[in-house]
Amino acid sequence: MKMEPDIRERVRRAKRASIVLAAKSTEEKDMALEAMARALDSRRETILEENAKDVSAAEEMVSRGELSKALLKRLIVTDQKIDTMVAGIRDVISLPDPVGRTMDSLELDSGLELYQVSAPIGLIGVIFESRPDVIPQIMALCLKSGNATAFKGGSEASRSNRILFQVLVEAISSIDGMPGEAFQLMETREDVSAILDLDEHIDLLIPRGSNDFVRYIQDNTRIPVLGHASGICHVYVDKEMDDEMAWRVCLDSKIQYAAVCNAMETLLIHQDVLEEFLPEMVRRLIDNNVEVRCDNLSLEILAGIKDLDKSNIVSVTDEDWDTEYTDLIISIRVVDSMASAIEHINNHGSHHTDAIVTIDVERAARFASLVDSSSVMVNCSTRFADGYRYGKGAEVGISTNKIHARGPVGMEGLMIYKYVVIGDGQIVADYSGDGARGFTHRKLDNQYPLGD
Amino acid sequence: MKMEPDIRERVRRAKRASIVLAAKSTEEKDMALEAMARALDSRRETILEENAKDVSAAEEMVSRGELSKALLKRLIVTDQKIDTMVAGIRDVISLPDPVGRTMDSLELDSGLELYQVSAPIGLIGVIFESRPDVIPQIMALCLKSGNATAFKGGSEASRSNRILFQVLVEAISSIDGMPGEAFQLMETREDVSAILDLDEHIDLLIPRGSNDFVRYIQDNTRIPVLGHASGICHVYVDKEMDDEMAWRVCLDSKIQYAAVCNAMETLLIHQDVLEEFLPEMVRRLIDNNVEVRCDNLSLEILAGIKDLDKSNIVSVTDEDWDTEYTDLIISIRVVDSMASAIEHINNHGSHHTDAIVTIDVERAARFASLVDSSSVMVNCSTRFADGYRYGKGAEVGISTNKIHARGPVGMEGLMIYKYVVIGDGQIVADYSGDGARGFTHRKLDNQYPLGD
Repeated sequence: MKMEPDIRERVRRAKRASIVLAAKSTEEKDMALEAMARALDSRRETILEENAKDVSAAEEMVSRGELSKALLKRLIVTDQKIDTMVAGIRDVISLPDPVGRTMDSLELDSGLELYQVSAPIGLIGVIFESRPDVIPQIMALCLKSGNATAFKGGSEASRSNRILFQVLVEAISSIDGMPGEAFQLMETREDVSAILDLDEHIDLLIPRGSNDFVRYIQDNTRIPVLGHASGICHVYVDKEMDDEMAWRVCLDSKIQYAAVCNAMETLLIHQDVLEEFLPEMVRRLIDNNVEVRCDNLSLEILAGIKDLDKSNIVSVTDEDWDTEYTDLIISIRVVDSMASAIEHINNHGSHHTDAIVTIDVERAARFASLVDSSSVMVNCSTRFADGYRYGKGAEVGISTNKIHARGPVGMEGLMIYKYVVIGDGQIVADYSGDGARGFTHRKLDNQYPLGD
Repeated sequence: MKMEPDIRERVRRAKRASIVLAAKSTEEKDMALEAMARALDSRRETILEENAKDVSAAEEMVSRGELSKALLKRLIVTDQKIDTMVAGIRDVISLPDPVGRTMDSLELDSGLELYQVSAPIGLIGVIFESRPDVIPQIMALCLKSGNATAFKGGSEASRSNRILFQVLVEAISSIDGMPGEAFQLMETREDVSAILDLDEHIDLLIPRGSNDFVRYIQDNTRIPVLGHASGICHVYVDKEMDDEMAWRVCLDSKIQYAAVCNAMETLLIHQDVLEEFLPEMVRRLIDNNVEVRCDNLSLEILAGIKDLDKSNIVSVTDEDWDTEYTDLIISIRVVDSMASAIEHINNHGSHHTDAIVTIDVERAARFASLVDSSSVMVNCSTRFADGYRYGKGAEVGISTNKIHARGPVGMEGLMIYKYVVIGDGQIVADYSGDGARGFTHRKLDNQYPLGD
């Protein structure tokens, strides 16, 4: 058996290759992406065979209670899923190359020019559970953006991950000069913690998995993590609003897809509209099998409503305000003012996505300004917070970080920049002390002249 | 004695107040800045008195060998330094307000619009040694950018920090509605580690101090740190270049201010120009009291030069390539190709600032593309890498991070954004499944309509 180089050595190789990848032209990268798409298409038999082995092992684990049914479901690769992977890679080909874009140009002095040029971050670590389709998706985004990638998947998907990775890297390497080494797959026998320690080489981690999984990663690494560990989202129904709009937006925010991070968990209602708004709202929620957890004020109102099925209505506890159900459950709180609603959201929310329903533009503006969340929705569903819906083409993840990238993140989240100063021999001594030359700091509209 | 609330509680207060500060208008913030400038000006007697106490205590510490002379020098506040602080605050008034800027706008569908709006990061932690002028400088930048700030200074400057902080926060609080609580000074008896643990509240740390100080902070917190722990900068002299330009750029990069992070530490010379370039280069360095540490090839060349004072020329060791001297010392290495130079820079450098001297535009382009540094200089001194010279008005720091902000960072490094989606009742159910509405994703040129 061939000895595999250890994880640190492979990550070092990826980092070294990242420099080469960063300098590749759009044409070369798009050729590699097309080769990836074709290879997936033509090798689908083998991919499905390997996946079937993972799936049958996983089914046994599910029957022994060692794996959740949700993870099993996400593990399965079908012909249709391969089509989606292929289409996803071709979508990335159609995105503009984010590398080498002139972000700013400034004349420092005559003949001395400063350029801010977009550049890849370097080496991205991707840690994921189950879903093997993470590999083609993220590999395509990273390749187009010139970033090397170290993947670490779950053991339940090891055969699927290995074949997908192998097919894709072979395709990349088939293009002359493309550094296949920029992409590395960590073997499953190696611990996740090994990758979390490599902050010297890995510039950014993208975790894909459950909230607990993401939180574990955030808590156990010094590498910056792009993602979110929870999505406790709110809708606040203001005192001046259109009832029908509010009912529709709230219902959609809760039930359109309850298992995801941008679904509403807590509904905040201004006390002035409680009586007109609440009963019909709860009726619609109940009709859609939502368990409704009410505070005392809303319970009181509902108690007075005769023709309402109350079997799914319970009292809320303090714990509910900090709970992400990801299920057909909602907590309801009555607030005496918009300020109280905002305070509740900033204290109990996860700074992910929060909405207001109001007809008062000034109050909408104040809400949007004071709610400290990555997405604020005015008179529309929280469910719109998503890279595809935001027109990003492809989503790297949704971030609740306060630096670098926030909210739904597309390929721009994989980019940084470098400054290049171009002169003809200028030295700082001439710009210092007595008789110093001044800087002109004149805004230029130039494209970076040393690009492709 | 009044009990001080503990550090965690004060940081929590600052975080809460950050929400209020984030929503303040440009006018209100500029009024507060003007009040800060005036207060410093009018309270200078008291400030100088308190500083004198710190200085005399520090002088005793220096005499006992407990404090470096460099730290003592940076501790001293003079009338002129107060003038500089006042002018610095007024400079910040003149900078455009970075909050609420429309960064992007997109129609998702008719009547459903997405805005990306710049927003403050939240709560910035500032940890600094000695220099009390960090407080007015960073407080002004944070206030203008709507960020709350928690300061932690060194015990050697405790009286100076306290009076400066008090004068400035009183000035801020004198403006109606400005939340003075957004700014907090951690008392010196509290450990730095207490602030490093507050990753739940502090969004970004800015350290100001020695390399060791910055590295200690980077190694002991999970809060993102904006800064650099070292500056091992290189100049590469290519095979086709103008000798006089190369001598001037190299000399300036080394001696114009040797103690700073953007000074050159290692000179890389293409072997083809070694004989014509090296002797005169070393002569100029020696004339300027620079100790020259040479590899074997360059030593050989110098050995043949008769009229050269060799007392300051020694052999280089492997350790030198990874050493930041911040002193009048230089290491010299001969390389057989530009590729070797780039590899040396990427392996031994600190990704801070590196330069090439060449007349070949294509080679300059390749160097700029392949050197993984925050600033790349083409035919000019490394010493230009600086916020003021880059036209930023005020410098938050120089970052070697690969995410968020890189290179010299101005107020833009204190900013993030939020997404605001404005609709009139749209729900995601209408955009899903059979007969789904499509998104238009039409680029808009609109200003965010819910701003000031």
